[in-house]
Amino acid sequence: MKNYEAYLFDLDGTIYRGNEPLLAAIDFVHTLYQKDIPYMFVSNNSTATPATVAKRLQNMGIKATPSQVITSGEAAVHFISQQDKEKSVYVIGESGLKTLLSEAGMKVKEDHPAYVVVGLDRKITYEKFTKACIAVRNGATFISTNNDSAIPTEDGLYPGNGALTSVITVATGQRPIFVGKPEKMMIEQAIERLGVKRETVVMVGDNYDTDIRAGINANIDTIHVQTGVTSKRALEKKDIPPTYSISSLSDWII
Amino acid sequence: MKNYEAYLFDLDGTIYRGNEPLLAAIDFVHTLYQKDIPYMFVSNNSTATPATVAKRLQNMGIKATPSQVITSGEAAVHFISQQDKEKSVYVIGESGLKTLLSEAGMKVKEDHPAYVVVGLDRKITYEKFTKACIAVRNGATFISTNNDSAIPTEDGLYPGNGALTSVITVATGQRPIFVGKPEKMMIEQAIERLGVKRETVVMVGDNYDTDIRAGINANIDTIHVQTGVTSKRALEKKDIPPTYSISSLSDWII
Repeated sequence: MKNYEAYLFDLDGTIYRGNEPLLAAIDFVHTLYQKDIPYMFVSNNSTATPATVAKRLQNMGIKATPSQVITSGEAAVHFISQQDKEKSVYVIGESGLKTLLSEAGMKVKEDHPAYVVVGLDRKITYEKFTKACIAVRNGATFISTNNDSAIPTEDGLYPGNGALTSVITVATGQRPIFVGKPEKMMIEQAIERLGVKRETVVMVGDNYDTDIRAGINANIDTIHVQTGVTSKRALEKKDIPPTYSISSLSDWII
Repeated sequence: MKNYEAYLFDLDGTIYRGNEPLLAAIDFVHTLYQKDIPYMFVSNNSTATPATVAKRLQNMGIKATPSQVITSGEAAVHFISQQDKEKSVYVIGESGLKTLLSEAGMKVKEDHPAYVVVGLDRKITYEKFTKACIAVRNGATFISTNNDSAIPTEDGLYPGNGALTSVITVATGQRPIFVGKPEKMMIEQAIERLGVKRETVVMVGDNYDTDIRAGINANIDTIHVQTGVTSKRALEKKDIPPTYSISSLSDWII
């Protein structure tokens, strides 16, 4: 074990499971808070704003401010804001993503936008897919908040944003820029915001294929927690192991 | 050139282009009719019934009965009817597909259907995708009417059924059985219905990747017409050429 100067956390499967907080994780974050060790939450979910996510965490007894949360929607907005191109966007997504785009002063338009941004939209229609396809064919930069194939719910696995995004990928033959984990973009943005050195940061998550892979892609250390998607056994089949794998955050001493 | 005993035709790009009949094709079909040479139309479109397609052809001055038309929706129903399994279906699709399923006496149900059938549905919703995903994960046989990535319209390329189907493929990790061209299923059904020998039938179409490939997959001769999607030039890159390629059906003497 190494003493890291900053911690990045996944949410579902790491901090809570569905609506149920994981007590070891909550204690762990509380210790970080007390010891004044910086931490952030890095979520692929684009349907909620960082403010909404922070509120949800606070309601679970976790110290969290909106600026300690990076969502894939926010990361997409940040990415666009840094490009040297007109800031007009056609967006497929829910209110969280739309709020962030409009707060950043980006112009939402259907006709020849500079960007198409796709986030999970449970009110998706054929017309929305069509507008996105035509814009991408007309040269819009195609961005997707994440490539999650499915979302766990109490009723089973629902289609994820990666599944919805595939409609546009297949129809246009264009692959999107994915913002969310396992891409490194959100990790890079978190490191930048924390203002710490890469070698002092660790990414903590339950899902090897998203959380741990994102850490590996960003060239930082990783802690796999066995409280969610990826079992200890499943890890054995992975080509690059996480830096550590622990049964829960109560096993990590700081 | 060979004298074939029966002809199979694609529709859009071969018999008409959008709403505009291709006169050489119409003359050609009329000659077949006069000479009493059997012919059928083989369409990937699942949104219309064979009766509706026949009517549309008749309105263009083409002799066509519903039994001379095979659509991918009808072929899907035929495929299911021949399987030794409960005939319950969850369907994503438009009225053409739904009409055919109900006319065949198949029970439409959402909860644990034996089949999920996906056809183009321009009223698609997240809820429909979700129901299909859950049914496929529960073991339903996953059938898709066709794998067309895009549909040409006057306003540009719209997402095709293959693009919509990919949501379920990505979300469940299950690949569907595709019914439409380039699969051979519809060609086989047409040959069976015509009651002719395979070596006496030819498939006529403009699209190499669907029409011609379907003929090749069914091991029958093919005539590529240069009136639609695939240019003569594009043919040069294909590993297996069509049996013939002609600029239009006025070049084919019967």
